[in-house]
Amino acid sequence: MTIPAEMMALLLKGDGYATVPSGSVLEAMDPYVEFGRIGVPQPDEGQVLIKVSLASINPSDVMFIKGLYGQPRAKGRPAGFEGVGVVAAGNGPLAASLIGRRVAFATGTSNWGAWAEYAVADARGVIPLIDGVSDIDGAAMIVNPLTALAMFDIVREAGEKAFVLTAGASQLCKLMMGVAREEGFRPIAIVRRDDQESLLVESGAAHVLNASAADFKSRLKAVFGAEKPRIFLDAVTGPLASTVFHTMGKGARWIIYGRLDPADTVIREPGQFIFQDKKIEGFWLTQWMRSADPASRAARVLEAQQRFADGRWKTDVTATVPLDAAVSRVADELAKPNGKVFITPG
Amino acid sequence: MTIPAEMMALLLKGDGYATVPSGSVLEAMDPYVEFGRIGVPQPDEGQVLIKVSLASINPSDVMFIKGLYGQPRAKGRPAGFEGVGVVAAGNGPLAASLIGRRVAFATGTSNWGAWAEYAVADARGVIPLIDGVSDIDGAAMIVNPLTALAMFDIVREAGEKAFVLTAGASQLCKLMMGVAREEGFRPIAIVRRDDQESLLVESGAAHVLNASAADFKSRLKAVFGAEKPRIFLDAVTGPLASTVFHTMGKGARWIIYGRLDPADTVIREPGQFIFQDKKIEGFWLTQWMRSADPASRAARVLEAQQRFADGRWKTDVTATVPLDAAVSRVADELAKPNGKVFITPG
Repeated sequence: MTIPAEMMALLLKGDGYATVPSGSVLEAMDPYVEFGRIGVPQPDEGQVLIKVSLASINPSDVMFIKGLYGQPRAKGRPAGFEGVGVVAAGNGPLAASLIGRRVAFATGTSNWGAWAEYAVADARGVIPLIDGVSDIDGAAMIVNPLTALAMFDIVREAGEKAFVLTAGASQLCKLMMGVAREEGFRPIAIVRRDDQESLLVESGAAHVLNASAADFKSRLKAVFGAEKPRIFLDAVTGPLASTVFHTMGKGARWIIYGRLDPADTVIREPGQFIFQDKKIEGFWLTQWMRSADPASRAARVLEAQQRFADGRWKTDVTATVPLDAAVSRVADELAKPNGKVFITPG
Repeated sequence: MTIPAEMMALLLKGDGYATVPSGSVLEAMDPYVEFGRIGVPQPDEGQVLIKVSLASINPSDVMFIKGLYGQPRAKGRPAGFEGVGVVAAGNGPLAASLIGRRVAFATGTSNWGAWAEYAVADARGVIPLIDGVSDIDGAAMIVNPLTALAMFDIVREAGEKAFVLTAGASQLCKLMMGVAREEGFRPIAIVRRDDQESLLVESGAAHVLNASAADFKSRLKAVFGAEKPRIFLDAVTGPLASTVFHTMGKGARWIIYGRLDPADTVIREPGQFIFQDKKIEGFWLTQWMRSADPASRAARVLEAQQRFADGRWKTDVTATVPLDAAVSRVADELAKPNGKVFITPG
């Protein structure tokens, strides 16, 4: 495979973090990235260079390009956390052994993102794909499906059958709830609108609670009183998550993996840490990929692929947008519900 | 020992929790407790009845009688979390085996407090005293000294030499810093005034940072950058603790054991849980007494007694106030610095 000296990519316009917080909706791509030319990177030790076939757009990408994600932006570098492609070069023995393989990848902290003709990823974090997995499924396999399986391991180990999810209508939550129901667990999904309730019950939710409803707090108390959930997997933080954690009983663990709400997160009653043995911690897939027990990591990676290959999971597609049209089209496509938007450099 | 039917005690005037938050200073006893007569309680299964010789007053007692502690008040019951006395009766084999023993005790969740002629405690939580330990030291042995030793175990297990303390001038922190220095650890004590700095350095502090100073935030950054503390033992919560936790680096653990500041506790950057592996948890001695590994619990109990018996630790006394004079005198005595106030029923 001949690697060109230069490539086209969607390059970050901002640097570091945003100084003014804003919401999780992408009003337009133009303030944050531009379509431009850049040199093809050299992978560092332990990294692979991937010729990108297809890249996905996740909520974390939107937060990142806006400067609201917990990693600083590097101005002028390509954005995009996830994609599928073929390994074109590798630095180091593991990386070199992957050359020519079709892989799902997450760019992690490489600063060379997937919204480009070539991307850089940690060789330990790429997933060589089995044949039954399509490029569409591969390009959206890590950030949502693998996070869903990895976080569900936390629920499984904690033992209680009931657990709580915010952003309950997200793709990630729907994937997790399906797995949970298969194993007899009882997800309590918290959403902000009523219109997806039946869809979520179909996806595996035991309860769907609408945070915008007038009786939300009383329903929360009633459901938590009956189900006694201890694990709270939270993608939003802010006042809603504070209320959920405050309402949970003894031994509750608030596990934060996203922060879609930029509003203040207040600990309503710090005494609950002392007298009710409550805890707050975080989950980051990049960290899990580095530090999880290799056997359980391999099992989850295989499970994700099998679920796509045998049709138990499938990726709903809203649009596949060419790289050179992304700046003008992506915001409108993301505004449509219930599917993912992809970017293709070809 | 003949047990009378009735006794005198300082009885709680409030019930449950305060509806209006207030500070940790006791402006007067009168709004919260009254001197009165009540029936001597019967110990439940696993509990002992103790004839109180001396009871202590801790910051947690003040928070409790004001309705600001994480346990609800039971109106008309005696207050007081800690004391020394002789076991007069016991319900169950362990409790009965303690009859006649001089013990340090904490009343925990019994609702029959130490500011009384008789108190009730969990038999597993009382400490039979060795001869060299005075009543004064015994009456103040659990809430501060044992908490100091138990929490220092967390620091020791975490490995890093530097750790952070708020309410750095408290009796508890001074005890802990002394132990820490003996083992080569480096306490970073955060206080609100400058006047105790030399006293704290003498007690074992490697750094003393005054949160009221204009350069507090820059000193915090500089000291944390050099010392890289990971454990934060916090008695205050509120804005100061939020700033401390926010400034700490990767893997920081905020362990809350008191909440002297009733102001809102805001998580400044929830993304730190995700990307920096930070955590919040709590410490409660009552829970530690129930659940700690018995061998390490016994070791810490013995260590506390030996430190008092051989003079390495001693209890500074501001005043010993008779039970019938407590309502009028205690608030004034508590306002004096650097010593403890005791209540004696005899």
